[in-house]
Amino acid sequence: MGNPDIAYPLWPPLTAGCPTTSTDEIAYPVEVDYDYDRVPPGLFEHATGTGLDRWAPLLPPLTAPGLAEGGTPLVEIADGAFVKDEARNPTWSHKDRLNRCTVSAALGAGADGIVVASSGNHGASAAAYATRAGLKCVVLTSAETPPAVTSFLRAYGAVVLTVPPEARWPLLRRIVAETGFHPVSNITTTHTGHAFGPEGYKTIAYEIFTELGVPAAVFAPTGYGELLFGVWKGFAELARLGVAMTTPRMFACEPAAGGPLARSLAEGRPAAEVEVAQTAAYAINSKVSGYRPVAAIRASGGRALLVDDAEMTRAQHDLARAGLWYEISATAGLAGFRQAREQEEFDGPVVCIATSSGFKDIGVGTQRPEPVDPRWDVVRRHLQSSGIAC
Amino acid sequence: MGNPDIAYPLWPPLTAGCPTTSTDEIAYPVEVDYDYDRVPPGLFEHATGTGLDRWAPLLPPLTAPGLAEGGTPLVEIADGAFVKDEARNPTWSHKDRLNRCTVSAALGAGADGIVVASSGNHGASAAAYATRAGLKCVVLTSAETPPAVTSFLRAYGAVVLTVPPEARWPLLRRIVAETGFHPVSNITTTHTGHAFGPEGYKTIAYEIFTELGVPAAVFAPTGYGELLFGVWKGFAELARLGVAMTTPRMFACEPAAGGPLARSLAEGRPAAEVEVAQTAAYAINSKVSGYRPVAAIRASGGRALLVDDAEMTRAQHDLARAGLWYEISATAGLAGFRQAREQEEFDGPVVCIATSSGFKDIGVGTQRPEPVDPRWDVVRRHLQSSGIAC
Repeated sequence: MGNPDIAYPLWPPLTAGCPTTSTDEIAYPVEVDYDYDRVPPGLFEHATGTGLDRWAPLLPPLTAPGLAEGGTPLVEIADGAFVKDEARNPTWSHKDRLNRCTVSAALGAGADGIVVASSGNHGASAAAYATRAGLKCVVLTSAETPPAVTSFLRAYGAVVLTVPPEARWPLLRRIVAETGFHPVSNITTTHTGHAFGPEGYKTIAYEIFTELGVPAAVFAPTGYGELLFGVWKGFAELARLGVAMTTPRMFACEPAAGGPLARSLAEGRPAAEVEVAQTAAYAINSKVSGYRPVAAIRASGGRALLVDDAEMTRAQHDLARAGLWYEISATAGLAGFRQAREQEEFDGPVVCIATSSGFKDIGVGTQRPEPVDPRWDVVRRHLQSSGIAC
Repeated sequence: MGNPDIAYPLWPPLTAGCPTTSTDEIAYPVEVDYDYDRVPPGLFEHATGTGLDRWAPLLPPLTAPGLAEGGTPLVEIADGAFVKDEARNPTWSHKDRLNRCTVSAALGAGADGIVVASSGNHGASAAAYATRAGLKCVVLTSAETPPAVTSFLRAYGAVVLTVPPEARWPLLRRIVAETGFHPVSNITTTHTGHAFGPEGYKTIAYEIFTELGVPAAVFAPTGYGELLFGVWKGFAELARLGVAMTTPRMFACEPAAGGPLARSLAEGRPAAEVEVAQTAAYAINSKVSGYRPVAAIRASGGRALLVDDAEMTRAQHDLARAGLWYEISATAGLAGFRQAREQEEFDGPVVCIATSSGFKDIGVGTQRPEPVDPRWDVVRRHLQSSGIAC
């Protein structure tokens, strides 16, 4: 996709999109390319190593030390779908796959540190990989960060600066300019992201494939859509390598409060900017879309679905009743699948990516325990009111 | 250990210790035994399946559906030790291994529900496995439960009753008596635990062995000591099966605020009860020890180490700087290893078990973000005061 005739060297990684094709209106992302003929033929049958290292021949150099990220399980749920449980990563979200790669880029580029703008998962994960690699880390966050996430962001020793939301990206660019730190989040107005980031995400496709084959469809919670793009790229590579015969349909699951991917697709534009309303799914409530996920959804025969808070709340509830506790944003994939299956049938397994643990939600840590009188007659009434015979 | 001549059928699982040998002073636990001659010879070379199911021939029947628990990575740290990262489990602690087995016991016993007394991890994990299995769950907890853990305990739909700490065990026994629910935590005065629980923990030994061989020593955070006993049993089985030639030395790492295992060993008694002082390591601050971990430490040539809050705080800090965020109780293993290596050398790899994610600590969710003026001169001063040149 994009223009394959324009090529740049891998180093230093470009972090502001394609310098040739980008316009004032849209920044076009750059993408890591490989010499696919040199990929070891048996990689998908007998790969060795743990975490992302298993897939090193199809990744940029993993110079940053790992935390055994990835290798997350598929868990079957009553909906007849598989949940890809990304809450099982080292910092309990899919962002660890991305940051293993972006922090490797920072190390490879010789930076002393990294800087990231984040409401939670991305920042904490970046901080973890930075400290493990001996790099400093600056996280720009906003006062809307939930209480438990505030502790999480500070846990890994990063410099965490709480600034007004609109100040984050200008400050990010300024810090990059003044310190030489490597940015591991997007620094362009329309979203380009870090070129190495989706390379980490594409290992989700490899893992799904080795466990399940090619699913009929993948449902991904989407903000900018980098996760979706990365997973699509992984499946597209499997087809290109001749390892897989088909590719899955890719479904973006966006909060109905915004929905830049749905807008782009509806208007036939490469990217879009939308107004966003309030939603509990703060982690994926993006104003802007990137170019790549829009192209991926089109190429895969997928769609962008808008899921509202009530749909995500139901999905979150039902996943918890299956023993899987996710933050509400993480449940957009299942909410999207439930919408889609009302309209069409899927001929094969379906995977919903669940991105992150329940500890990251807004309300976590704000509930106070209500003491109960321990006398048996009082306890019995409590149990009976919950449907327990005694 | 114990008296191998006394045997009971597997069903119904005994939950109050050995009815023959227990006295008013001490309850002796019962243990699951196997026909080791029937274990498939190649189990440790080419085991298949995910989670605990991989080890089914050496476990009680896993009737409760799984969540792909276990299979957690070993992560190397600068101390020259490996951390067994149990925060990568389905509910982010080692308790998932135990509860897959105890909830299987409840299902196998035909109970409609389970009941558990817990300050956090055990209760949430039990609730997750119970709801997945279609069982009701009652969690008895206390008002000291930290804020984020309060949300966690309620996430899976259990009936959570906050009662005075001293009321928990009498109420647990009463609920068992009145509802027929199966207890998945200890119901005896000295600790026996659930017979199926350590069977889940022993899979930690199998996983360490397949990745690393037999380590020289294992350091485990210990409250009652069930985790330590389970891991020891796993290694002892490997030796008995002729798969491994040696067994590791087992080190219990107890909060210095209490320390019933150290007391038992010092006094040459099968179990002990101690007074406990305040510690941030609330999750492992036990008054009583069980019989089994004391015997395991002795048999392995290990020791019980008392680690204070300052030592655990340093271990927690250093682990976070290696990219691994654990609750303070979970870092007792590394704190213990650091004590021990001052006194002796270990001839081979050392494993510190880290039991649970940082989200479970007392202070999590209580810190408020402090907004920073986003003007560059202010931000620059912040960065400079953190040692960042700009």
